[in-house]
Amino acid sequence: MLELFYVLAIIVAIGAFALAFFLAKSVKKMESSNKKITSVGKMIKEGANAFLKCEFKALSKFVLVFMVVLFVFLPKPLWKYDSFVDIWPNLLMSIAYLLGTCCSGLAGKIGISIATTANVKTAEAAKKGIKPAFLAGFRGGAVMGMAVVGSSLLGVTLLFWLVYELTGSATILLGFSFGASSMALFAKAGGGIFTKTADISADLVGKVELGIPEDDPRNPAVIADNVGDNVGDVAGMGADLFDSNVASIVAALVLAISLNPGYIPVVFCYSALGLLASIIGILMARMGKSGNPTRALNNSTYVTTGIFLVTTLIATIFLDVSGKWYIWGASVLGLSVGVIIGIATDFFTDDRRKPVHNVAKASESGPAFTILSGTAYGFISALPAMLGIAVAALGSYLLCYQIDGTTTSGMFGISMAAVGMLSIVGMIISNDAYGPIVDNARGLAEMGGLGDDVIEITDSLDSAGNTVKAVTKGFAIAAAGLTVIALLGTFMSEVNSAAIEMGKLDAIITGFDIMDPVVFFGILIGGVLPAVFSALLILGVNRNAQRMVDEIHRQFKEIPGLKEGKEGVNPEYEKCIDIATKGALKELLPAGITAIGLTLVVGFVGGVKAIGGFLLGNIVVGLFLALFMSNAGGLWDNTKKYIEAGHHGGKGSDTHKATVVGDTVGDPFKDTAGPSINTQITVVSLVSSLTAVIFLSFHLFG
Amino acid sequence: MLELFYVLAIIVAIGAFALAFFLAKSVKKMESSNKKITSVGKMIKEGANAFLKCEFKALSKFVLVFMVVLFVFLPKPLWKYDSFVDIWPNLLMSIAYLLGTCCSGLAGKIGISIATTANVKTAEAAKKGIKPAFLAGFRGGAVMGMAVVGSSLLGVTLLFWLVYELTGSATILLGFSFGASSMALFAKAGGGIFTKTADISADLVGKVELGIPEDDPRNPAVIADNVGDNVGDVAGMGADLFDSNVASIVAALVLAISLNPGYIPVVFCYSALGLLASIIGILMARMGKSGNPTRALNNSTYVTTGIFLVTTLIATIFLDVSGKWYIWGASVLGLSVGVIIGIATDFFTDDRRKPVHNVAKASESGPAFTILSGTAYGFISALPAMLGIAVAALGSYLLCYQIDGTTTSGMFGISMAAVGMLSIVGMIISNDAYGPIVDNARGLAEMGGLGDDVIEITDSLDSAGNTVKAVTKGFAIAAAGLTVIALLGTFMSEVNSAAIEMGKLDAIITGFDIMDPVVFFGILIGGVLPAVFSALLILGVNRNAQRMVDEIHRQFKEIPGLKEGKEGVNPEYEKCIDIATKGALKELLPAGITAIGLTLVVGFVGGVKAIGGFLLGNIVVGLFLALFMSNAGGLWDNTKKYIEAGHHGGKGSDTHKATVVGDTVGDPFKDTAGPSINTQITVVSLVSSLTAVIFLSFHLFG
Repeated sequence: MLELFYVLAIIVAIGAFALAFFLAKSVKKMESSNKKITSVGKMIKEGANAFLKCEFKALSKFVLVFMVVLFVFLPKPLWKYDSFVDIWPNLLMSIAYLLGTCCSGLAGKIGISIATTANVKTAEAAKKGIKPAFLAGFRGGAVMGMAVVGSSLLGVTLLFWLVYELTGSATILLGFSFGASSMALFAKAGGGIFTKTADISADLVGKVELGIPEDDPRNPAVIADNVGDNVGDVAGMGADLFDSNVASIVAALVLAISLNPGYIPVVFCYSALGLLASIIGILMARMGKSGNPTRALNNSTYVTTGIFLVTTLIATIFLDVSGKWYIWGASVLGLSVGVIIGIATDFFTDDRRKPVHNVAKASESGPAFTILSGTAYGFISALPAMLGIAVAALGSYLLCYQIDGTTTSGMFGISMAAVGMLSIVGMIISNDAYGPIVDNARGLAEMGGLGDDVIEITDSLDSAGNTVKAVTKGFAIAAAGLTVIALLGTFMSEVNSAAIEMGKLDAIITGFDIMDPVVFFGILIGGVLPAVFSALLILGVNRNAQRMVDEIHRQFKEIPGLKEGKEGVNPEYEKCIDIATKGALKELLPAGITAIGLTLVVGFVGGVKAIGGFLLGNIVVGLFLALFMSNAGGLWDNTKKYIEAGHHGGKGSDTHKATVVGDTVGDPFKDTAGPSINTQITVVSLVSSLTAVIFLSFHLFG
Repeated sequence: MLELFYVLAIIVAIGAFALAFFLAKSVKKMESSNKKITSVGKMIKEGANAFLKCEFKALSKFVLVFMVVLFVFLPKPLWKYDSFVDIWPNLLMSIAYLLGTCCSGLAGKIGISIATTANVKTAEAAKKGIKPAFLAGFRGGAVMGMAVVGSSLLGVTLLFWLVYELTGSATILLGFSFGASSMALFAKAGGGIFTKTADISADLVGKVELGIPEDDPRNPAVIADNVGDNVGDVAGMGADLFDSNVASIVAALVLAISLNPGYIPVVFCYSALGLLASIIGILMARMGKSGNPTRALNNSTYVTTGIFLVTTLIATIFLDVSGKWYIWGASVLGLSVGVIIGIATDFFTDDRRKPVHNVAKASESGPAFTILSGTAYGFISALPAMLGIAVAALGSYLLCYQIDGTTTSGMFGISMAAVGMLSIVGMIISNDAYGPIVDNARGLAEMGGLGDDVIEITDSLDSAGNTVKAVTKGFAIAAAGLTVIALLGTFMSEVNSAAIEMGKLDAIITGFDIMDPVVFFGILIGGVLPAVFSALLILGVNRNAQRMVDEIHRQFKEIPGLKEGKEGVNPEYEKCIDIATKGALKELLPAGITAIGLTLVVGFVGGVKAIGGFLLGNIVVGLFLALFMSNAGGLWDNTKKYIEAGHHGGKGSDTHKATVVGDTVGDPFKDTAGPSINTQITVVSLVSSLTAVIFLSFHLFG
């Protein structure tokens, strides 16, 4: 019976790959004739590949270290085995970890490869009109969506099939999930540093100092900037959602096993149907007669949501487990709340709404007021999402609590709400990856001199990308929020399994009491971690941008004819790409070490109870900061665009300059620090679950 | 026996009043001859009094409403009494509430009254040298310190004596504490909006648009700005620390009663000795031969700390209760951690340290980088305080847990750590109130044309005020942090007393479990409240500043000769004061209503468990935001001053302009929103404790 669902999941995952292959082929065979565009496109592709190569190299050292650590300590320390033959679970754990990084990395590689082709094709297709251009951009993005969700579902299913048969537990899947998190840490935080380093430096020297337009080919950082869109927004975001998706499924599986293994099929069924819904949604995506790309993107999301609701409804009728409607209800609640959060969050960044208008008005008094009012709206913007997550968590817990009246059933409900929310993640990634592709296409159209009409078309595609991005980002953070709450349940469940195995029955925990000082201690420290983590990333961007600005200055000084735009004189683009790449990985290290190190310190001081509190503090402040930074960044970006559209004095006015300051502050907020917090929380949650055994044995207090 | 300690506390409190009286007299009889200074000083005094009058008027309506509500519902609803004669506890509760507002208001009134005299005297004394000027400023501030701590200790002691004899409980003291919180909400948040409205508008039109110096008498907002220093930093800060001080003592008393009434004398003894230490510290404050005002201020703090440690050590030897050394240890731990937090926090705002230097360097690239790097350091600056609070809470809990091994004993330990940390609050307030007095004196010296030498002296006094302020602010937030943790214990204790009285023994709670979805629901919503609260205050400042800027423009346009500084032409200062006053109280309302309203909503949805979570989320995010905003604001302020001292191009350079943007952003951060969060948390904690009974009877889930 269970095998049937494994096979279903595998078939749908293979279907996703087939669709990705078909879409990639259709994008590749589109026309590209403009020599300049082709050559710049090639440079972007090479730059992105150079970053990936460098990232994978850095990651591989990291992976190697962790593989050894996992092998020695987990699921239980090597010296606790009776015989050498029995150590295979440890071997499996470290292989699962490797597999997690590889699956995520592979999806990123595929996505980047097609995204850096689709950008060229979109620019060229825009010559024929908005519809073919939209299709090129959308299909390029959909390849990433399908690759990410396909490989995550395939990896989880195959591994679970093997591991569950062998061990009857899903603990080893946490290794897979941790692998995905490691990849996400490098891809999202590292990519985020890369993209903003390049963006900020290009703007600082190009737009501010020299007054040359965005995407001007004389600017040595311009290719790095375009590469950054791909590595930050395509590969980084893909790895982030790969991570969340895997974590939500794994959390649900771990909880299902300790609740009632009869629920395992439900998890696979819903995940597979979510991917199926995304496949159909992508196939049905068309631009209507209106030629409105935003509507086309949103419609495909709504179609996917609808298909998921209907197909899971039908499937649930045929499922043969008790309490199945509670589970369905939890998933539907999760998904609905996700969509509502997306829409509510959009309010704070939409340039037709009050927040953007008010910030634009305040900017008339200078940049300090852009920052102050934007910060204030950013703070408030966290309210709907936090409220939504609170309601979804409470509702899904109370629903599934009725299954057997235990905490585990309630937490399983939350994990299924997360699975429901993430069911349409294939569609979300597609829409999200569409953004940088059309953004690149706009730059290429400018550099290739395709004329104002074409640039206008790519502009309208780009603007749709920004609008949709705001919604999907809110969605992604909310989904990550629910997932990490479920991971809190997973952590407790892991602690208890370990306690039982070790015969320490008095160590079994039924919860984490706020009034327990050890828990409280953990909460306060966990609460400050996301702030320190994002501060280190922001400082990293600053430092790295400084290096790149120096390099740009050097090139303009030392390369004769560059500033004047003399024919045949080209800047050394690759040097800027190199700085962005190396700096990104270097600046990422302190943040990563702080996150993992602080977890271990808290664990050794206060044991598993302190870690429970630590995770909670981390989730609450982390969610808030992620929402604040992402939304404030989006708000400032759109305020600048609103001014540029001719309001309050338009481009070049003092008000415009004030909003440029806001936009520059918002860039690392929304593209580096904000979205990396998701990953930080997941990494810390998984490290905690994995090391639960160790902290059960050694700790100072509590 | 207990009466002895009441009498001790009362005598020390009266001693504080006597010292305040003596200091006030000595300040008043100092010379003031300069006519211009006297007349401007008079305007400031009148402005401050006008604000206080308006504030008290607005507050009195609020107080009236709450008195009725408290009378009807608390400690138990009127209809639950058997006979009309028995309702006196409800009457007492509403009188206690009134008393709380009055004691705090009286202290504020006394403090403001002397501060607005001392500023004139300090300016004049500076003609004779730094020592007499320092003495005038310090004594003026000390009056506020003595008035606040004296009246809080006197109020609590007398009320407790009465109430405890009558009811055997300290619940009614929560009403007194809530009264102090209500006053703090108006004084701190309202005063904060007032001061920043005036400051920002004066700078925007004066310095930025017209290029006239700070404190130029032509600027219609200049008096409002000076008034703002007094109402925000003297009265507001005083009410805030009155509130924290009362809350910490009341929390300790409530917990002592439910643990072992034998500990009540310890609470009074330590509080009285803390005040005594501050009295001696103030009497011993002298400026050494070095003429360094910072050292003089810090030395008096260290002297006070030392005296507290020694006198409590001796007193503890003679105290006749078991486990007394645990309690002493907890207090000492609290105080030591407070001092360490103060010093560590200073690192992030000190202009001789790396953070200020790095932000100054980053500012060379423009204001966006001032904001980004300042935000990053602000985030990191929360780490030492959060860590310190975590360690103090854990340590003091574990110490006192050994008394009888119950949660109550542990929470009593935390409350005694808070009492220890706040023991030197008299000294802290004195140092803090010194700041605005010498700041005012600097402005008066400028307006009165006392010459460069005198201005230099007032400048060095002012700079010492800023340095000390950074330390005391970190201290105040940490103390508030520990106090609200203790209030969490008080809340639980109140819930249980109510449950026992209602015969609902199954409603007794031993803690709040994170894994309980109702608690989690509360945590997420409590976490977002401080953000929304501070956002509303910041938006309020923006809106109000806009009104005042319009008024300043009008005056410069409509009053002939004003801009040119024609002899005898004066701006209409009182109009600006009026706008600041009315706007402050108007803009405060939405924030206050949101805080109290959200508490009630969460309580009605999830009952006392949700409120427990709500308080926790509120504390964690609130502490973080308060620390971030206060420290980032201080950092930006000092970075600007560092540039003005001639670094990175000095005054007038682009780097300087960038740091001015940072300073303007930081102003409402550090003087409005950041410090108001303390008050918000305390208000919410007390509302929760007071309404515990109601939520025990009515709620939807959990």
